Amino acid sequence: MFSLTISFNLHPNQERIQNNIEMLATMVDQSKPGWTRRPFTSWYKEGRAWLKQQMEQAGLQVSIDAGGNLIGRLSGSEEHLKPIMIGSHTDTVTGGGRFDGIIGVIAGIEIARRLQETGTTLRHTLEIVDFTAEEPSEFGISTIGSRSMVGNLTAEMLERTDQTGLVLDEGIRMIGGNPDEIYETARKTGDVSLYLELHIEQGPVLEQNNMKLGVVTGIVGIHRYRVIVEGKPNHAGTTPMNMRFDALTGASELVLELENLCKFTYSDPVVGTVGKFTNEPNGANVIPGRVIFELEVRSIDSEIIENIMSSFSKYAALVAAKRQLDISLDNLSKSDSIRVLPDVQDKIAAACSATGKTQYLPSGAGHDANQLASIAPVGMIFVPSREGRSHCPEEWTDFAEVALGVEALARALINFDQDYIERR
Amino acid sequence: MFSLTISFNLHPNQERIQNNIEMLATMVDQSKPGWTRRPFTSWYKEGRAWLKQQMEQAGLQVSIDAGGNLIGRLSGSEEHLKPIMIGSHTDTVTGGGRFDGIIGVIAGIEIARRLQETGTTLRHTLEIVDFTAEEPSEFGISTIGSRSMVGNLTAEMLERTDQTGLVLDEGIRMIGGNPDEIYETARKTGDVSLYLELHIEQGPVLEQNNMKLGVVTGIVGIHRYRVIVEGKPNHAGTTPMNMRFDALTGASELVLELENLCKFTYSDPVVGTVGKFTNEPNGANVIPGRVIFELEVRSIDSEIIENIMSSFSKYAALVAAKRQLDISLDNLSKSDSIRVLPDVQDKIAAACSATGKTQYLPSGAGHDANQLASIAPVGMIFVPSREGRSHCPEEWTDFAEVALGVEALARALINFDQDYIERR
Repeated sequence: MFSLTISFNLHPNQERIQNNIEMLATMVDQSKPGWTRRPFTSWYKEGRAWLKQQMEQAGLQVSIDAGGNLIGRLSGSEEHLKPIMIGSHTDTVTGGGRFDGIIGVIAGIEIARRLQETGTTLRHTLEIVDFTAEEPSEFGISTIGSRSMVGNLTAEMLERTDQTGLVLDEGIRMIGGNPDEIYETARKTGDVSLYLELHIEQGPVLEQNNMKLGVVTGIVGIHRYRVIVEGKPNHAGTTPMNMRFDALTGASELVLELENLCKFTYSDPVVGTVGKFTNEPNGANVIPGRVIFELEVRSIDSEIIENIMSSFSKYAALVAAKRQLDISLDNLSKSDSIRVLPDVQDKIAAACSATGKTQYLPSGAGHDANQLASIAPVGMIFVPSREGRSHCPEEWTDFAEVALGVEALARALINFDQDYIERR
Repeated sequence: MFSLTISFNLHPNQERIQNNIEMLATMVDQSKPGWTRRPFTSWYKEGRAWLKQQMEQAGLQVSIDAGGNLIGRLSGSEEHLKPIMIGSHTDTVTGGGRFDGIIGVIAGIEIARRLQETGTTLRHTLEIVDFTAEEPSEFGISTIGSRSMVGNLTAEMLERTDQTGLVLDEGIRMIGGNPDEIYETARKTGDVSLYLELHIEQGPVLEQNNMKLGVVTGIVGIHRYRVIVEGKPNHAGTTPMNMRFDALTGASELVLELENLCKFTYSDPVVGTVGKFTNEPNGANVIPGRVIFELEVRSIDSEIIENIMSSFSKYAALVAAKRQLDISLDNLSKSDSIRVLPDVQDKIAAACSATGKTQYLPSGAGHDANQLASIAPVGMIFVPSREGRSHCPEEWTDFAEVALGVEALARALINFDQDYIERR
């Protein structure tokens, strides 16, 4: 087994990382709250132009692929080895923060700079990717660039139009992509040795546990349902309590039961949420006649999700019978979970532990890694999010913590480059 | 004590009542669902013109008072006795039915016709009133005409504007009223001997109990509160169940507790409802950060309401502490209940029992009687509402049941005219 030298020569430059993050934070739509850089806008293009410059200065050969992904490439010494890819995204949600996605791209560029500065040549070719439009978009899809890279962006999706009238196909062309070539140029299983991503946790776990680094065990699968609770809208004054068919009180029991079911201890963590909830007719003096709500359950173990939904659905039938309501559950979507391979987890854990206090945890949110997982092993490192906040102006990670994440990512990269991939 | 003749000579004409109701149902805004005759519209004026004709044909002397109330007057034989008033309204909610309010006005006119046809002269002057705009209006007030009659319509209210830009003051002038004279002509305590109103129940109690007539024991008071449940809007995927501050699950506990508290047995009936309920930010993958809802509790006994709200408020504090949420309760309004005097109830009960199967019950909704109660004793008779429906196109009462209501009202009128009032 390869053994590292004691001094870690890719130690990143924290000040430079901070400057980079702050620079991108200036290229935003000032008319929006927080830091807003929606894909296909002038601010996005401005950010991309600046990133391209950074990549070039770091000695990377820059190109834009068919899906509009910005890729900086550094050739490795062993041509037969497929590239290791480090990526994330620089688009934000509206009113978002300065860290989500951004630190992953900056991390890749910083590592390239340190490779250049230390005269280090990797065995594998290294690709640093700023994926197109990762966040939920007005086109009704997320991870547009990474979908495209693995051939998961359908012709139908390309024809979708956002609220401004922009067709996705045109948007991708505007940033230098060529949708006509997405399918012939898509990466296939084996084309990438390993995909690595550094990201903010977007949750409170690392901070609460006083940890600096998280080894991602997988990305949860999400099952979403629409629940319709149908009662009778009656006069709130003239209908006695025992003659009501109140959709809201029925729905309230369901909301609490979902919480209840998800609070049990399972072999893997699970979360369940009712996020959307609409009451009808919503008059101060009318007994609610209908409630429509959307629930989701997330876990790495889809069997746990299925068990919870089975219990929930039985409970809903009981509530319907007891209250004489009609309750229907419709599945809206089921996304599969991604499991990080145990040996990838362990190697990342070793790199993280050599850098700072580390724990294992699942990712509750989706990432570009979800898409890359369909063609390559993936690994992710999390750094803490203050108060677990994300997708809001308050999103924050100390720059020292970001630098620790970049350091851990660099260690992991070197380990994988030297040891892991050749064994596959 | 005066004793009635065995044969009841004011027995109403059911067919004529039906024709009248059906005729008014033709004078509606056809562009709206159900039967819609909003106040101050052309349909309302058309209905009023037709009612005036009916009143005149019934031998009533017709006038419009300062608040735009249409009044048909029949002089009694004893001038020193203050009038007995029978009233209700002919405006409807948008998308409403054919019975709410309308049957009370038609009942009064039918009784006047029967008095005329049988050559009966009452001791008291009789006034039949179609009150202006009883239903909740775009001006943010209801019972506009009866408010005006008792001097409860303020100058501020008269200046309010509806969505079409109409000022209430102008609306009242449009139908023949004169707002300048509302205060000097307002009726005062003692100016009316008794106010009687026939109305549909708008609830399911009579039908469920297989009763034909209801003696109203009072009109409930209503206490309304706005409740704000403040949590933290976090990512539904990345925030573990035990690190959440979910406003929706907290609010759900409150909704169920209100139902619970109102289902106890109290000395008077009570109902509690959460009708309006809004979830924020209402995103499928965001833990609800804030829920705002409005609750109301109704009972004839305001002490019961206060006790329920005191228990509810303690429970809310427990939920707030347990879930680390901020929960605030703000009182929006407290309307006083109206109690029908026991001797008025009994006299009405005697008239009803002589007519059909009768029970006592409170009115869960407000009526013009609420306003009249501030200057005179009031009494109300209810007839059944099919499935308890009201304020909707499905609102229905069999014409035979309406006729029973008119008959009971006529009996009560004669009893009061002969016996009751003179003792006061």
